[in-house]
Amino acid sequence: MNYPARGSIAEIEEGTTLQPLFDGHGLMPCVTQDAATGEVLMVGWMNREALTTTLETGMAHYWSRARQKLWAKGEQSGEAQRVKRILIDDDQDCLLIQVELTGGASCHVGYRSCFFRELQWRAGHTDFHLRYLETAKVYDPVAAYGAPQHG
Amino acid sequence: MNYPARGSIAEIEEGTTLQPLFDGHGLMPCVTQDAATGEVLMVGWMNREALTTTLETGMAHYWSRARQKLWAKGEQSGEAQRVKRILIDDDQDCLLIQVELTGGASCHVGYRSCFFRELQWRAGHTDFHLRYLETAKVYDPVAAYGAPQHG
Repeated sequence: MNYPARGSIAEIEEGTTLQPLFDGHGLMPCVTQDAATGEVLMVGWMNREALTTTLETGMAHYWSRARQKLWAKGEQSGEAQRVKRILIDDDQDCLLIQVELTGGASCHVGYRSCFFRELQWRAGHTDFHLRYLETAKVYDPVAAYGAPQHG
Repeated sequence: MNYPARGSIAEIEEGTTLQPLFDGHGLMPCVTQDAATGEVLMVGWMNREALTTTLETGMAHYWSRARQKLWAKGEQSGEAQRVKRILIDDDQDCLLIQVELTGGASCHVGYRSCFFRELQWRAGHTDFHLRYLETAKVYDPVAAYGAPQHG
């Protein structure tokens, strides 16, 4: 899919035409949010092919930087994402997609969200300890992937 | 601030110690979410200095890639972010911060969220038209910045 060329700053920032900017590696970050709850599930990367396939199929596709290939979310784990809405930021170099999980998880470690840990912190006091926000894995990643996976 | 060194994959992904990974440019993406509503407000970038200053002050600081300098959010616009919670993802290369807006906006264009436009789309049908999700600017960016700003 060919995307519209970038126009003026005014067109990009306040216009009504998608004019996406992919970075020097051909990638754009994509925040993925639960459409129902607003929970941030993950941050992935899309290249033109991943965005196009997402638009054509309605299912989230990313570019796996670790595996250097198009990644149909859930292709191994079964934990896919049905896309409900696609938003873009002011300078059109970052996507936000709102999805429904077809399973109940998004994270390859087995948790619902990749952001399952919170830093123990208050202003001026940090001890680098991470507290778990989820108490149990939604699925068994070893059963899903066969071995620990990344990307 | 010196951060703990990266350990094994198991320590990074399932451990309870912050072991952040900054990319080849010394940066890590940071998703910024409204602590009360879950709305995604922006995606910024933090280097070690920005993260340290955020931890020390409790106010969101980013690295401005456009200006190549530490960016105390709100330093020009007055639209600052008080940090309530800091989460990190499974492989510890992406941050999620939940904030309270000291004003009522986050976006340098003047809207509440940088993601103020939605793509007109359903699976297999895309016309590249963006629909506005916010109807009015929260503040006047020209008054705040003097001229259009980026970063």
